[in-house]
Amino acid sequence: MQLIHSDADTRVDAGYILCIDNDNRVLRQHSLLIKDGVITDICPTDELGDQTIKEHYCLPDHVVMPGLINAHGHASMALLRGIANDIPLQPWLEEHIWPAEGAWVSEEFVKHGAELAISEMIKSGTTTFSDMYFFPEVVAELALSIGMRAQLCCPLLDFPTAWGSGPDDYLTKTIKLHEHYKAADLIDIAFGPHAPYTVSDAPITQIVELAKSHGANVQMHIHETSDEVNDSLKACGMRPLARLEQLGLLDATLKLQAVHMTDLTNDEITLLAAREVSVIHCPESNMKLASGFCPTQALLDAGVNVALGTDGAASNNDLDMFGEMRTAVMIAKGYTGDASAVPTTSALRMATINGAKALGISDRTGSLELGKAADLIAIDMRQLRTAPSYDIEADLVYNTSSSQVSHTWVNGQLLLDCGRLTNIDEDEVIDTSKHWATKIKTGNN
Amino acid sequence: MQLIHSDADTRVDAGYILCIDNDNRVLRQHSLLIKDGVITDICPTDELGDQTIKEHYCLPDHVVMPGLINAHGHASMALLRGIANDIPLQPWLEEHIWPAEGAWVSEEFVKHGAELAISEMIKSGTTTFSDMYFFPEVVAELALSIGMRAQLCCPLLDFPTAWGSGPDDYLTKTIKLHEHYKAADLIDIAFGPHAPYTVSDAPITQIVELAKSHGANVQMHIHETSDEVNDSLKACGMRPLARLEQLGLLDATLKLQAVHMTDLTNDEITLLAAREVSVIHCPESNMKLASGFCPTQALLDAGVNVALGTDGAASNNDLDMFGEMRTAVMIAKGYTGDASAVPTTSALRMATINGAKALGISDRTGSLELGKAADLIAIDMRQLRTAPSYDIEADLVYNTSSSQVSHTWVNGQLLLDCGRLTNIDEDEVIDTSKHWATKIKTGNN
Repeated sequence: MQLIHSDADTRVDAGYILCIDNDNRVLRQHSLLIKDGVITDICPTDELGDQTIKEHYCLPDHVVMPGLINAHGHASMALLRGIANDIPLQPWLEEHIWPAEGAWVSEEFVKHGAELAISEMIKSGTTTFSDMYFFPEVVAELALSIGMRAQLCCPLLDFPTAWGSGPDDYLTKTIKLHEHYKAADLIDIAFGPHAPYTVSDAPITQIVELAKSHGANVQMHIHETSDEVNDSLKACGMRPLARLEQLGLLDATLKLQAVHMTDLTNDEITLLAAREVSVIHCPESNMKLASGFCPTQALLDAGVNVALGTDGAASNNDLDMFGEMRTAVMIAKGYTGDASAVPTTSALRMATINGAKALGISDRTGSLELGKAADLIAIDMRQLRTAPSYDIEADLVYNTSSSQVSHTWVNGQLLLDCGRLTNIDEDEVIDTSKHWATKIKTGNN
Repeated sequence: MQLIHSDADTRVDAGYILCIDNDNRVLRQHSLLIKDGVITDICPTDELGDQTIKEHYCLPDHVVMPGLINAHGHASMALLRGIANDIPLQPWLEEHIWPAEGAWVSEEFVKHGAELAISEMIKSGTTTFSDMYFFPEVVAELALSIGMRAQLCCPLLDFPTAWGSGPDDYLTKTIKLHEHYKAADLIDIAFGPHAPYTVSDAPITQIVELAKSHGANVQMHIHETSDEVNDSLKACGMRPLARLEQLGLLDATLKLQAVHMTDLTNDEITLLAAREVSVIHCPESNMKLASGFCPTQALLDAGVNVALGTDGAASNNDLDMFGEMRTAVMIAKGYTGDASAVPTTSALRMATINGAKALGISDRTGSLELGKAADLIAIDMRQLRTAPSYDIEADLVYNTSSSQVSHTWVNGQLLLDCGRLTNIDEDEVIDTSKHWATKIKTGNN
């Protein structure tokens, strides 16, 4: 008996479908059907016969899987990609990044930088990104116009920036934006207090209250380095996490998104699990800045939800989630001395469904299941570096290049078609980024 | 005045030329001229005007640099890519790799595996590789027929394998091959005693003598894990390096190629420098198998020549030297906690000229200098992930994908042209690898 799918608008026939559902199902020669941006069926291709559906993609050499979720970054910093290298976090921030941002960040900078970043992310298989940067309203509009799913974390620091005059101004702007995008399926507006060492107690307490009353997410850099922890001990006699706990930010209803977390005690790991805090692991940024190692396997063992992020392109220096998965797996083993730490299935989940859970959107995305949004990617596995194949999940984590991503759909909309961006002029984006770099290098506005 | 280069047969105009010479010169808008496989000039493109030269490549958006040197691997194991993952070295070897090799390694397996590996390496910018595997004569012939530069390390173990009956047989075969390829510019035949724990004293002593009298290189896996070191202490009261020193293998005239070296004391590092031993660092394999960290910056500080290798595709799982450079830089910083460890220039040298020094061929290759072989690659930097650019060396190490390699020349012969292999049928190579995997998975010969 043939199933009837005449109401679907898109049919994707794939060599492999990785569902990343609870059973981590890997299906051979299956088809995925989409109607109005929603996955309506996943069934053996054989059962469909030659049913004509408006959009039909035959991808027999491909893996189709959930789009990757880049759970932490600073998209517009793509314009500062590689501006300072081989330098630790604090001088990197204080002597290079903050001066450059002080001189150059504007609405235009943010728009052009985010366009570069979103283009790179779509091409490398990311369908959702979390952003923490100035002028989040600009990035929200841009993401919406392109059709990309995003969480915009509105920055908050004790001091003024190009985007605001201080904590009160940041909070007002955040609430306004949150209200504005409440109904937008693709866009979530979150609080983005920068870090324990740049945000004092009062605004953190305000964020706790406002996030609860508005039902908004909170993402924060926490325990990025041991220096941060030691400085806090000196300043207030508490580790940053203990201070945040005291201020109410670890309240389980908030489901805090804690980025980096390289310095953690066993008690802190237990606390994170109890408080349903998600950890966003950014292995390449942590390595490049010599910030430390996040104990990912210990966190997973404790039941903590661990997601992955690239961080900004200035500390990575790319936005490639395939590279991030690979690095996460490699350093977990290297760091613990246990080759079984963070196996490939865990890495794939960290880069997809765990990201969706962290961002509070796992009802909508992060896995290929009926009723979820069609946020998916196709990867051409018929390449030298993925031949032959014994274990498709290992291939995806250890030896697939993001350049093999051929198709990217968000909410059923095709954003990458056979390696080409469908609604962004890649040449123009590259040229614009070069103009910015020339200006920044020569210091001429 | 215009220079006259009418005798050159190839002209490559490049946006950037990275010489990797003693001054690490980075030249803008320069041209490289080749005659009979040798670099005859590097000069500003302006000075050449429109001189007609037989082969003329205009690559204004590209970096041209020395081809990468993959100083350690097991090429044919590409057919076992991904066969076992998330397992430590000893069970990985004893329960998975050695049984598979025992069942399947043959001249045909070696040929097809090496063809897959060489194809992947040419596409990802490698122009020289060192191989340590059975039937090295098959790989030597294949490399020569393709036009790839290679060092073939003939394996030696205490026990019989598909390639030989025991130490005497391996040595005889090695000497015969070394004589046969003495005049071949592209091929070097070396001794490849597998590891301290698989080769007893007598054959090591024989290798010391034979390598000296024949002027042959020696490459060996040494101190891959701390277990190896501890087992040796138990077995003979000495660390493996001390035992090899006693047997004469560290004699400075031999310029031993020591692979892995994750467990090293300061005294051992000093000894390696004094004895002109090169260390071949394989960071991804070491991480994947949780073997440990090679102290690369400490070795460089001591004056030890450190080169890079991917190891075999079964423990990596690719042969991508761009990824290897990136991982080497990242873990050096992560491991030492010093973000300035192994800066980008060091990584580029490790992947090129240091590899040539390790393999004893730096008179011929490893840098772009007059009189050296035209072993070079072009990389298309006009891509989203390499835009914009502030530091071209950082771009190459941190955010360039090997998929951006567009051209590969060895000895002046074009092996990759706009991303296409010139003399290998890529489709056939992939299909052949799939046939092998099917046979190996089902156990049907």
